Amino acid sequence: MSDISFQKAAYAQACLARGISNPNPAVGAVIVKNNKIISRGHTSVYGAAHAEVAAVKNAANSKHLQNATMYVTLTPCCFTGKTPPCTDIIIKNKIKKVVIANKDNNPAVYRKSEKYLRRAGVTVSYSFNKEIKKKCFLLNEDFFYKNKYKLPFIIAKYAMTLDGKIATYNGDSKWISSVAARRKTHSLRLHYDAIMAGTNTLLKDNPLLNIRYIRHKRSPLRIIPDASNKLPPDAKVFTSREPSLFLVNQNPSPAYLEQIKKNNKQYMKFSTRNNFFNFKTVFKKLATAYNINSIFVEGGSRIFGTLFTANLINKYYIFIAPRILGDGKNAVSPITVSKKIKSIKAALVLQNTAVQTIGTDLLIEGYVDFKTIANLQKYIA
Amino acid sequence: MSDISFQKAAYAQACLARGISNPNPAVGAVIVKNNKIISRGHTSVYGAAHAEVAAVKNAANSKHLQNATMYVTLTPCCFTGKTPPCTDIIIKNKIKKVVIANKDNNPAVYRKSEKYLRRAGVTVSYSFNKEIKKKCFLLNEDFFYKNKYKLPFIIAKYAMTLDGKIATYNGDSKWISSVAARRKTHSLRLHYDAIMAGTNTLLKDNPLLNIRYIRHKRSPLRIIPDASNKLPPDAKVFTSREPSLFLVNQNPSPAYLEQIKKNNKQYMKFSTRNNFFNFKTVFKKLATAYNINSIFVEGGSRIFGTLFTANLINKYYIFIAPRILGDGKNAVSPITVSKKIKSIKAALVLQNTAVQTIGTDLLIEGYVDFKTIANLQKYIA
Repeated sequence: MSDISFQKAAYAQACLARGISNPNPAVGAVIVKNNKIISRGHTSVYGAAHAEVAAVKNAANSKHLQNATMYVTLTPCCFTGKTPPCTDIIIKNKIKKVVIANKDNNPAVYRKSEKYLRRAGVTVSYSFNKEIKKKCFLLNEDFFYKNKYKLPFIIAKYAMTLDGKIATYNGDSKWISSVAARRKTHSLRLHYDAIMAGTNTLLKDNPLLNIRYIRHKRSPLRIIPDASNKLPPDAKVFTSREPSLFLVNQNPSPAYLEQIKKNNKQYMKFSTRNNFFNFKTVFKKLATAYNINSIFVEGGSRIFGTLFTANLINKYYIFIAPRILGDGKNAVSPITVSKKIKSIKAALVLQNTAVQTIGTDLLIEGYVDFKTIANLQKYIA
Repeated sequence: MSDISFQKAAYAQACLARGISNPNPAVGAVIVKNNKIISRGHTSVYGAAHAEVAAVKNAANSKHLQNATMYVTLTPCCFTGKTPPCTDIIIKNKIKKVVIANKDNNPAVYRKSEKYLRRAGVTVSYSFNKEIKKKCFLLNEDFFYKNKYKLPFIIAKYAMTLDGKIATYNGDSKWISSVAARRKTHSLRLHYDAIMAGTNTLLKDNPLLNIRYIRHKRSPLRIIPDASNKLPPDAKVFTSREPSLFLVNQNPSPAYLEQIKKNNKQYMKFSTRNNFFNFKTVFKKLATAYNINSIFVEGGSRIFGTLFTANLINKYYIFIAPRILGDGKNAVSPITVSKKIKSIKAALVLQNTAVQTIGTDLLIEGYVDFKTIANLQKYIA
């Protein structure tokens, strides 16, 4: 086997961590001795073993690790967080060489890790394979983005008809997309740290915003914007067991706070203006105080309009179902901004788009500003 | 070479006739002698040679036709129209056998043709290859549909953004789709007998509704619904050289009719109600009096709404461009019906959909009722 195939094997491990490791990045590692993979590992749930530790633990005989090479998709950590530093484990087990796909884009982290390892006699080298580096990077684009901008990576997802409608005039949207598309939505939810819906959607649809349809080891945090305490006590985001973080105004009623506490949910106070949050402020806080890398926003048209106008959306996932509703004037369009847009030239052009067929539907994904995202790679060796 | 490959060669010829032969169906023929193709032909422009005649004429030596086999995609005609009957040409040239892919779905035609040929000693057989028969059929679905239902096959085409908009609130739509998509639109226009736009679109956009971008040998008829004589004398559908058929009310002004005649255009009177035509009546008349098999309708939202409500659309071609406009409340949606639709379950589900990438856009096509279209094939042997 070749160097490239070992890197691919480490990437395959990283893929297994997706949706499990959050808010830790999805990382994979393989350990190679005499040109053979002797162990594999990936990041486990938050607070449990990182990929490097898992790979070391998974080795049949720890003596074999001596003088071995570790292929890992991200710079090994050098700090004690919920777990001991990975650099220490590597050094302690006398691994001789580490081949890294993505540099941590916090320069303090990757420089310190490099220094530790080299000082202990471990050779540190970086992958030259652009394709693998890109794949590893895209798996954790939200982590890299938050590291750099101190803002969560925001994903907007909606399902619309072939005539551009996400609901009838009276809010019916069940179901525009196929079962397969809904299942895919749940696997996308799982990829990200948090799930959010707008107040109107929470009131109208009373969604669970949790993971169903697919097996999962964690529940993304539900972010519930409710600037005017409108949500009734029987809202599912109160009563179901998954974690919820309510965004409330500066003076929530005692009854409302009691309701939150009673259900073992969390809340955070933010100032409002005409009953609207400033979502840039909210997101900054969620990134720094809650370590949230990414938020998967599922509509409706008002919250999309607010986030679109504030230029806070980074990526779109749009399902298109082969339905025609008609009723162009009354049915609900995906995104409602508060001003009239005069020219098609003013429209946003999504970049790096991709399309796939999911059941009877199409799923189109695209970035608002892929250059900014791609530039995060300049931190990657 | 095998029987199937000769049938495929005949189909390939038929494809060459697409957009040329209208309103005649696109038909191809090859003549085979000693297991070799000795001649090929396809239907030419309306009034010129049919495929069978072209294939006979293209033979290097007419003596070789004796005892040859002709593979043809549609029942040879047996009547004198603009050209002499194809059955006569086959008999006169002593072709021994005819293998047909699609039976003409006018039973009077195919029975009579069969009888003529058999009586003259020509063996008539039908293809057993479903795939080829289906391909030949789909090439002429509009012709078969009009034969059966005495209504033109109606195609709705629009280009929308990823948030379901075909124009800004003030009508700007230049350009939602890419140059490649617009070029594709012109090749689609050419496939069909006629092109139509709604009155609002004609007034706002002053479109040419002709073929540009691509080479072409004919100009589809432009159908111009103008129930209240609103179009100004400098409208391009008046002044440009391609044929236009104006649909006018029962009492058009003399000045308006003069305008039509001066520009060498045609008109047809229809009764109106609140300044609207009954398009079912209009289309029936266009099918019978004008021999129009198909109309390619290019919007806007009002005419689509009218045709959608009247259940007159047979097929959709929808371009989706990777743009996000926002402004869900004000920007123009593709289809506007005059009633509020309460439930997603009431939405039309397109059938036999297909998707392709055209430049930076997607092109989705689908049928409103594919079963009805497919049932036309029961006339196909």
